[in-house]
Amino acid sequence: MRRALALAATPGVPLHPNPRVGCVLLAPDGSTVGEGYHHGAGTPHAEIEALTAAGDRARGATAVVTLEPCNHTGRTGPCAQALVDAGVARVVIAQRDPNPQAAGGMDTLLEAGLEVDAGLLADEAAEINRAWTFAHLNGRPFVTWKLATTVDGRSAAEDGTSRWVSSSAARRDTHVLRGLCDTMLVGTNTVEVDDPRLTVRGDDDEPVGEQPLRVVMGERELSADRKVLDDSAPSVHLRTHDPAQALRTLYADHGRSHVFLEGGPTLAAAFLRAGLVDEVVAYVAPMLLGAGTSAVGDLGIGTIADALHLALVDTTVVGEGAEANVRMIMRPTKRS
Amino acid sequence: MRRALALAATPGVPLHPNPRVGCVLLAPDGSTVGEGYHHGAGTPHAEIEALTAAGDRARGATAVVTLEPCNHTGRTGPCAQALVDAGVARVVIAQRDPNPQAAGGMDTLLEAGLEVDAGLLADEAAEINRAWTFAHLNGRPFVTWKLATTVDGRSAAEDGTSRWVSSSAARRDTHVLRGLCDTMLVGTNTVEVDDPRLTVRGDDDEPVGEQPLRVVMGERELSADRKVLDDSAPSVHLRTHDPAQALRTLYADHGRSHVFLEGGPTLAAAFLRAGLVDEVVAYVAPMLLGAGTSAVGDLGIGTIADALHLALVDTTVVGEGAEANVRMIMRPTKRS
Ligand SMILES: NC(=O)c1ccc[n+]([C@@H]2O[C@H](COP(=O)([O-])OP(=O)(O)OC[C@H]3O[C@@H](n4cnc5c(N)ncnc54)[C@H](OP(=O)(O)O)[C@@H]3O)[C@@H](O)[C@H]2O)c1
Ligand SMILES: NC(=O)c1ccc[n+]([C@@H]2O[C@H](COP(=O)([O-])OP(=O)(O)OC[C@H]3O[C@@H](n4cnc5c(N)ncnc54)[C@H](OP(=O)(O)O)[C@@H]3O)[C@@H](O)[C@H]2O)c1
Repeated sequence: MRRALALAATPGVPLHPNPRVGCVLLAPDGSTVGEGYHHGAGTPHAEIEALTAAGDRARGATAVVTLEPCNHTGRTGPCAQALVDAGVARVVIAQRDPNPQAAGGMDTLLEAGLEVDAGLLADEAAEINRAWTFAHLNGRPFVTWKLATTVDGRSAAEDGTSRWVSSSAARRDTHVLRGLCDTMLVGTNTVEVDDPRLTVRGDDDEPVGEQPLRVVMGERELSADRKVLDDSAPSVHLRTHDPAQALRTLYADHGRSHVFLEGGPTLAAAFLRAGLVDEVVAYVAPMLLGAGTSAVGDLGIGTIADALHLALVDTTVVGEGAEANVRMIMRPTKRS
Repeated sequence: MRRALALAATPGVPLHPNPRVGCVLLAPDGSTVGEGYHHGAGTPHAEIEALTAAGDRARGATAVVTLEPCNHTGRTGPCAQALVDAGVARVVIAQRDPNPQAAGGMDTLLEAGLEVDAGLLADEAAEINRAWTFAHLNGRPFVTWKLATTVDGRSAAEDGTSRWVSSSAARRDTHVLRGLCDTMLVGTNTVEVDDPRLTVRGDDDEPVGEQPLRVVMGERELSADRKVLDDSAPSVHLRTHDPAQALRTLYADHGRSHVFLEGGPTLAAAFLRAGLVDEVVAYVAPMLLGAGTSAVGDLGIGTIADALHLALVDTTVVGEGAEANVRMIMRPTKRS
């Protein structure tokens, strides 16, 4: 299973929209007869790749797979049936499939008389597809809120200027994190004031890789010249103020599993108040403003005992010298 | 000289009010005949300790000393003359004495016909007495501003409650840093609202070690029941709003070299505006408030280009688990 997990986590395989999966086929004597991993949407599933590699040697073999084989016919056939047809004798599964549309593979295998074990290293398998697993279990995308702030908690100066609160090293790091998500989300006012592109760009400022869906939330009309509406990536305007509804729509209608919420403070506060932020990434710049836009809007907290406590997961200095910013990654805990 | 520097930096030797000094006496054949370091005010200077250890062997020896030997008769006699009297042939000095009252030792040695070299590892020697050196060179104490803030830059909630923005691990760490200073400074309003003790306390909340001078700055009267006026440590009330004047008084009248400025935001802003903060220690708690007292008052900065940029010197996670706070140590750079 460790080998199958390593295959699933092969660098470069996209996190979205499909889960990353690895599969190893073992002959009865324990030797490997086939390996495979899923390379991304539209390519063969891990099991099919492994079965193809094994050929006739799949007969009587044990399939070790990081995710319950799928049961539905998407762009590729159902993998559970393919394992049965190839004469595989036993299937060892790490994570059960949390996706209601794809689940049922294990039943197919059992009904066909195969021996099936599930649950081995299931947590590690789920971690490889953290946001995807979360989205299917919760019926909404995982939400990462990113903020850039000065030490004194300002995201922009008094006159609204905010270029650049974070260093260029922090901005490069942000583009790496954007690239791990499938959805960018901002409020209408950020689009109006900052006119961001919301694309994932490399060092040369050119778009790189699969672009996330660009989502703007709020009721006002957007002027047609906004960069977020250009053709560099798809965009959606959600005319609602309800964070839960917006997330349901992104999951159910757009198949999204990981939202990167980039502000502004008003929209971030609405998500925080609704308890719909699953991870906070703060870039703290060693800089003081003394006045200006707060990093987050009103949270309805009046006294220190009601503060929203977060667990510090990681602290990293991003960039060097005058470029150094402190990146704090946090996860909400229950209110103290 | 490395050995003399190590002696000077002997753990446990107080940083105030006297500089830390180390001295090694070497016979003409290079063997060590005496060593000494200054243990703190009222005890023999490093040179005297080394001369006592060497006895007659000091004759013709080379004295390697981290700071120019003093020339004045304080609680102990002038060291320069003692070296001459003991028959020392050569003196190697790291740092020249920046204290106008004590300087002149090198001249005394030269006039007596000794061979003198100065400047070897001078920067390292100055670093051992960083604040003391700074104070004598600038005629005012070195100022460390400490703030405790949430990720969104709040030092207290909307209703004024602030216990505890920082974790107990961060508060313990603060007491260690307080213990390295000789002066605590707050504004009158912090005394009125929080009634802090401003003492250096250990894990059992009892005062430990030499206590810094407690200074309150502001024009209003303090009520007599304030803890800062109790007899656990000396206190001074400076009835001024002028940071430069306050620092001059603390240096000239009270012999202070290192101020630990603990707020509040109004007083901190006044020092920042005056360019009189030499080091910033921020404890950032992984917590959000969304409203409340800002970590720092108005700095007269209206646009991002005028932001007060700091250089990040150190980033450390203080405490573990729910106790973890991020401590950022910064030094001002010129405004960009
Ligand atoms: N440093 C950073 O990390 C960062 C990131 C982004 C922005 N910023 C700065 O933040 C400022 C913009 O902040 P902002 O807070 O005004 O913009 P925002 O959060 O992007 O947009 C606020 C707007 O979103 C709509 N909205 C959608 N759902 C809402 C809800 N549940 N509650 C309230 N409003 C909702 C409302 O507009 P409708 O009237 O259209 O409904 C509202 O006016 C700019 O100065 C920008 O530079 C900084
Ligand atoms: N989290 C933290 O690190 C921390 C630390 C300390 C305090 N706090 C919080 O901060 C709040 C108190 O803050 P604060 O800013 O009101 O108190 P402050 O800065 O301690 O005191 C302000 C007062 O100092 C006097 N003052 C002296 N020099 C001044 C100058 N150059 N300019 C203006 N005023 C000067 C003025 O009083 P006169 O009228 O007497 O002249 C002024 O009202 C409390 O809620 C406290 O809990 C937080």
